[in-house]
Amino acid sequence: MLVEGVHFLPDVDPGALGHKALAVNLSDLAACGAKPCCFFLALGLPRVDEAWLAAFSDGLLQLADRHRCALAGGDTTRSPAGVTIAITALGKVARDRVVARSGAREGDDLWVSGALGDAALGLAVRRGEIALPEGQAQAAIQRLERPEPRVVLGRSLAGIVSAMIDVSDGLLGDLGHLAAASRVSAVVEWDAVPRSAAVRTLADAAQQRLALTGGDDYELAFAAPPQSAPAVTAAAAAAAVTVTRIGRVGPGDQVRIVDRHGEAMDIPGRPFDHFRA
Amino acid sequence: MLVEGVHFLPDVDPGALGHKALAVNLSDLAACGAKPCCFFLALGLPRVDEAWLAAFSDGLLQLADRHRCALAGGDTTRSPAGVTIAITALGKVARDRVVARSGAREGDDLWVSGALGDAALGLAVRRGEIALPEGQAQAAIQRLERPEPRVVLGRSLAGIVSAMIDVSDGLLGDLGHLAAASRVSAVVEWDAVPRSAAVRTLADAAQQRLALTGGDDYELAFAAPPQSAPAVTAAAAAAAVTVTRIGRVGPGDQVRIVDRHGEAMDIPGRPFDHFRA
Repeated sequence: MLVEGVHFLPDVDPGALGHKALAVNLSDLAACGAKPCCFFLALGLPRVDEAWLAAFSDGLLQLADRHRCALAGGDTTRSPAGVTIAITALGKVARDRVVARSGAREGDDLWVSGALGDAALGLAVRRGEIALPEGQAQAAIQRLERPEPRVVLGRSLAGIVSAMIDVSDGLLGDLGHLAAASRVSAVVEWDAVPRSAAVRTLADAAQQRLALTGGDDYELAFAAPPQSAPAVTAAAAAAAVTVTRIGRVGPGDQVRIVDRHGEAMDIPGRPFDHFRA
Repeated sequence: MLVEGVHFLPDVDPGALGHKALAVNLSDLAACGAKPCCFFLALGLPRVDEAWLAAFSDGLLQLADRHRCALAGGDTTRSPAGVTIAITALGKVARDRVVARSGAREGDDLWVSGALGDAALGLAVRRGEIALPEGQAQAAIQRLERPEPRVVLGRSLAGIVSAMIDVSDGLLGDLGHLAAASRVSAVVEWDAVPRSAAVRTLADAAQQRLALTGGDDYELAFAAPPQSAPAVTAAAAAAAVTVTRIGRVGPGDQVRIVDRHGEAMDIPGRPFDHFRA
């Protein structure tokens, strides 16, 4: 559920909002290894604004069409305090290929797709907190506003990985969910965490904040036995997405970030919590 | 999507709200002849209120359990302006038994389940606009706050009826949807419209307003060929729900209310519209 004033501002580009509202759901399906089938849209609007609705629908349906995910039903109603969007997306995955958060085992490698921190960088650019060359600024904002759910990658990894989650609230928070569900710990080597050239221009503390706790990247983080590494990289190549080994699964129940010497690092920030933000 | 201040007031009984939020979805499934399977809940809350949430969940899950409809997923988020609820319920029905709004044919009988107007009467009682003896007042409020979706009846009628819709916005409005989808007219005999003893204590104009445009009754209105009448009444008996023949399907594209002499009646009020209310 996306709520105006909480998840987006009143002046958001309606096309980007439509795209993102569905993208976050497709990202969840990707993390299960599922192929999107259809979705249902509940839309609360403060007033009828046809231009806004046309742009919103355009962003939403273009992404839906690309993934052959049909709008199967829903509801429209009045929501005086602002736009509210609730999408339920359904996908299919063979029973023996369903990927859960709970399957990670001690000794597994930890991986992540793409690069982390760009969406949070885009937000900082939007807010005027960070200035970047125009090309990098636009790329970061694109990552924030038009995330590409890793649907093909997720399907390719089903049957190979032991646990998977999409990185929506920040790597630390989401690996925390995976570790808790699997009753294991996650040890992440900071140097291995993939970051774009734009993120790497920043100071270390800012890089860590953006890449580890920034959220909204919609990459996939997953665990796989070391012997599956060739299959993982082949699946990633087939999906035309980079994947990076960032650490390993251990005993215990925490998420730890370590430096190149294996020493624990103290990372600022904490996972995002809508009720405390 | 149910929005605080639009569909319910802040002081609504949370158990009744939980019940009704799911009931309106199960009612839609019933109108398709479907058996409920599972549902997804997106819940926006202005704050964490555990007592409220416990009561809401209780009302929601008791109804879900009775229909063996599992909560399969969802989302909880912050919604500063008030509680917002979006439920997507999924059901199953054999392909050749799916009931649509669009199948009504000239010459069909029109039927409705139960009695109409009690939910609107309950609202008038709640607002202090109408006073009733305690027993009747409580029964009307129960119809408003804890509607029983006609799931068993809807499934029993699948394969028999030609078109069906649930009466959520008032009989006139919902028969209008059915008539428009079927490209036919609906002619309703006012005297035949089933009303409770409590509704019948009111003046004619008030009875008409409540029973024809009141909304929130969640009965089923349906069309069936005259020769199917015995099958309709048998299905209703099997579901332990009364059904009443209230009119017939004709040519054209309107909904008309006629008196005992077949003369058109002028009915006050119009179908509910969230954006004009």
